[in-house]
Amino acid sequence: MGKRLLVIGGVAAGPKAAAKAKRCDPEMEVVIYQGEEEISYAGCGLPYFISGVIKKRDDLVSRTPGKFAQDGIKVQKNHLIEKIDVQSRILSGRKIGSGEAFSDHFDRLVIATGAFPIRPRIEGIDLGNVFYLRSIFDADALFEKIKSDKIRNVVIAGGGYIGLEMAESLVQWGKNVKVVELAPQILTLFDGDFAGILRQYLEKKGVEIFTSEGIKALRGEKGVVTHVQTAARELEADVVLMSLGIRPQVELAKQAGLRMGETGAIWVNEKMETSAEGIYAAGDCAETTHLITGKKIWIPLGSTANKQGRVVGVNVCGGNDTFPGVMGTTVFKTFDFNVAKTGLNMREAEKEGFHPIQAIVRGYDRAHYYPGGKESTLKVIADQRTGRILGGQAIGEGPSDKLIDILAMALHGKMTCKELANVDLAYAPPFSPVLSPVITAANVLMNKLEGKVRGIQVEEVKEKLSTSKETFQVLDVREEDEVKRKRIPGSTWIPLWKLEKHAGELDRKKEIAVHCASGLRSYNACLKLQHKGFENVKNIDGGLLCWCDSPEKTG
Amino acid sequence: MGKRLLVIGGVAAGPKAAAKAKRCDPEMEVVIYQGEEEISYAGCGLPYFISGVIKKRDDLVSRTPGKFAQDGIKVQKNHLIEKIDVQSRILSGRKIGSGEAFSDHFDRLVIATGAFPIRPRIEGIDLGNVFYLRSIFDADALFEKIKSDKIRNVVIAGGGYIGLEMAESLVQWGKNVKVVELAPQILTLFDGDFAGILRQYLEKKGVEIFTSEGIKALRGEKGVVTHVQTAARELEADVVLMSLGIRPQVELAKQAGLRMGETGAIWVNEKMETSAEGIYAAGDCAETTHLITGKKIWIPLGSTANKQGRVVGVNVCGGNDTFPGVMGTTVFKTFDFNVAKTGLNMREAEKEGFHPIQAIVRGYDRAHYYPGGKESTLKVIADQRTGRILGGQAIGEGPSDKLIDILAMALHGKMTCKELANVDLAYAPPFSPVLSPVITAANVLMNKLEGKVRGIQVEEVKEKLSTSKETFQVLDVREEDEVKRKRIPGSTWIPLWKLEKHAGELDRKKEIAVHCASGLRSYNACLKLQHKGFENVKNIDGGLLCWCDSPEKTG
Repeated sequence: MGKRLLVIGGVAAGPKAAAKAKRCDPEMEVVIYQGEEEISYAGCGLPYFISGVIKKRDDLVSRTPGKFAQDGIKVQKNHLIEKIDVQSRILSGRKIGSGEAFSDHFDRLVIATGAFPIRPRIEGIDLGNVFYLRSIFDADALFEKIKSDKIRNVVIAGGGYIGLEMAESLVQWGKNVKVVELAPQILTLFDGDFAGILRQYLEKKGVEIFTSEGIKALRGEKGVVTHVQTAARELEADVVLMSLGIRPQVELAKQAGLRMGETGAIWVNEKMETSAEGIYAAGDCAETTHLITGKKIWIPLGSTANKQGRVVGVNVCGGNDTFPGVMGTTVFKTFDFNVAKTGLNMREAEKEGFHPIQAIVRGYDRAHYYPGGKESTLKVIADQRTGRILGGQAIGEGPSDKLIDILAMALHGKMTCKELANVDLAYAPPFSPVLSPVITAANVLMNKLEGKVRGIQVEEVKEKLSTSKETFQVLDVREEDEVKRKRIPGSTWIPLWKLEKHAGELDRKKEIAVHCASGLRSYNACLKLQHKGFENVKNIDGGLLCWCDSPEKTG
Repeated sequence: MGKRLLVIGGVAAGPKAAAKAKRCDPEMEVVIYQGEEEISYAGCGLPYFISGVIKKRDDLVSRTPGKFAQDGIKVQKNHLIEKIDVQSRILSGRKIGSGEAFSDHFDRLVIATGAFPIRPRIEGIDLGNVFYLRSIFDADALFEKIKSDKIRNVVIAGGGYIGLEMAESLVQWGKNVKVVELAPQILTLFDGDFAGILRQYLEKKGVEIFTSEGIKALRGEKGVVTHVQTAARELEADVVLMSLGIRPQVELAKQAGLRMGETGAIWVNEKMETSAEGIYAAGDCAETTHLITGKKIWIPLGSTANKQGRVVGVNVCGGNDTFPGVMGTTVFKTFDFNVAKTGLNMREAEKEGFHPIQAIVRGYDRAHYYPGGKESTLKVIADQRTGRILGGQAIGEGPSDKLIDILAMALHGKMTCKELANVDLAYAPPFSPVLSPVITAANVLMNKLEGKVRGIQVEEVKEKLSTSKETFQVLDVREEDEVKRKRIPGSTWIPLWKLEKHAGELDRKKEIAVHCASGLRSYNACLKLQHKGFENVKNIDGGLLCWCDSPEKTG
């Protein structure tokens, strides 16, 4: 008879580990314990089920217990595990519904207990019509509610990616959607400039956004929420979606005496084994390593859970597989914007002791002359001392996912800007500009590394425009038709091709921040001005691509 | 006064080098000599101009001589260079039209003379209505001709990617299109299985394809082509498009005594400098290094030309930039199929002394439950001895370009299957399956490397089915509805979930090749059979994904 493998948790990492183990060792007895009615469902698909993009709830369930049974894996639904006895190798718990106690013996154990949504201890948090979105049952409940015409005002607490995915779904249901975020920007994993681009876009789509405003309390009538009280205002709310993030579900492991990591998730080694031999943890309940900083990190994602599940499945059978870590790659869609990130952002890079510089370029999905092109704005970040690529961000209707995947692979390869500038990517007019935007960004970074032209960030330009008008000027080198469409207030306009003759109109004593649409012409302008002896010239990173109305005005 | 830089060739690498040099050193005098009326146009866009996707011819021209002049770069159109005098640093030539002779002195020279189409020495090659597609003028001439309703039959000589891009354009113009290819398959850069998938697709779109058939002669009346004579048949042809490939334009360099490479293109070092100091070559006329084999190679592509042009632009100014080489990444579109490749194919890998194994998987562009998904078939190749990734191919309506770009980056990073299996790629349901197809393929390769299940290629299965029926059987483990749609003739059908009970129906003495739709269920079936003591069991690589009707039948 084979060894007995028990798996706690039936959503992503658990079923994956179970299936892989059974394939590796058909003699192994495998049982999955799941504390819910459903198993093996796509948590990441819930916002699209609510929006109606995914029509059938069943489509979210990738494998039913019957399918598992065909592969010789037993699924125990509605079985809540209450205790892991590490010494005697026994799980015990209680059946949901009947309350009947049960226990089971294991040789190997996989803990895949996932994560739970943050529930702030504020007044009114227990009112009706306050929802979370974590399990498929949360989605069922929310879906049922928002179908009603009586629900007009929805407040989303939290401007992270699940909140913003849901903002789209709810606008499409015809709701008035307001997002309330405690931090000074939405999308705190991204830099402020890119969060600003998204904010402006969402506001155009009708989403109201309030940043730097924590939720203080929920007010209601007859036990049902009616208003959200923030630090600055009271918002009408027929439904509140709490989307403040999640925390690892570690109580069972903690009570069993397993080592907890510095991140608050379960500590595991590279083999995904916990501090107790033969007991593994995988998915949202386990911590992992950040491949750029080398530090322990907790970034719960479905794709990571699946990879870890496979590694664990191999190792419970006596294999020797390892999961090296993650780089914080993420992507989501809100309305028609694709928003993606990998590696470190500027803030994170500075905090980790790097000297980050950035390039911001247009990221088209095809040659400029091939019709139907879509554009994202792409940022690539490198370390000034070593030239090593540290991360990237992409946002827009264009190929953000593709660009970020290329950058994620560059991070895995520990590439420098110079290496990235010559990578052999697939080019034909329907698929990419002749030089991939990633390569263009690498070239911009190389120019910066060589110190030919200094960069200045949009935030700093805005700051100086309002505080240092006497010593600071903005130069716009675009063409007339572009300037007519949008212009930075107070800027001087000299098209690039007139700069040779008209540079004399500029005040040499002032700092000059030059911009065009995205940064190439302004780069040339900086070179020309420096050649003419202008000393304090800077190129605005990304030009107008990142120039949004400031949140203060629109918020 | 600055140094004088002359550039021969004004399409891609030449203008790029000129522009970069002028930015690096504004004092430099830069002149581009171009032997045609047009400069800086997008050669790769010509098929889309002819198809009508690109409406305006001007859109193909990225920079006019006037734009170059604004940047201080002089363009000499219609100036044909006839001689490079390396010793005295002088170019000489003749103006097209007037025939007037000219000469010019250089300190630095860039040779970017490009490539020319192969023109076979066969009977009738000089007949009217025989076209090539290399320059924008070739495109003008062909475009003018095919607009006419009188042109009904078009024969394309050559089944490479330009020929196949043009097949789409010509079918959309309502022509009867036939492709004639000397090799046993179209698309010789790809493996036979993938070329077979494309062939079947193109035939469904109405393109007739004849392989293993060289063109012997062109026949005509009144000086205009009417028929193409192949080794096997005579085809009606109102227009013939010769698309047999290109050769590097090296006559000038050869006559100047510059070193030629083993590939027939101009030899250059990593700085793109030729054997003569201060003379550089870039783009389609120069050879480069294959980054996997380390050998010299000539793969002419617009994207490579642009990168090389930049490197040369830096170096002519005294910089020290290098171009490391290429990996044979390529992509093209024909009808709605995206066809892409990077690195080595199976044949190439074997020839280079590797021991290639392959994984073939479905490459979706989103989660299975997210509607509108598009699929490519993805192949990833690795070396059995080291586990190193060697190359990949992708074909279908799905995200071939994205998958191949990820693989190209894996090749740059010299990744193994194991490393590739855990890369942190961007996942959300609208953008990717939870595990990228690249990761799934890496997992399949890891299973193969561990020797758990042996693979067998579709070609070998076909061969054995026709020659070794007594000792060979095919087992189909799919579900009933799938089997009804398409089935391999002569196969035994036992769905995977019945295999436990019904394995006894199989003949243990025979070799068993198992398949499902793409390879996962059949992998499980192989494990089960091996567990039951079956010894000669193999998994068919890619399952039905690569099972096309054989070219012999349809050709």
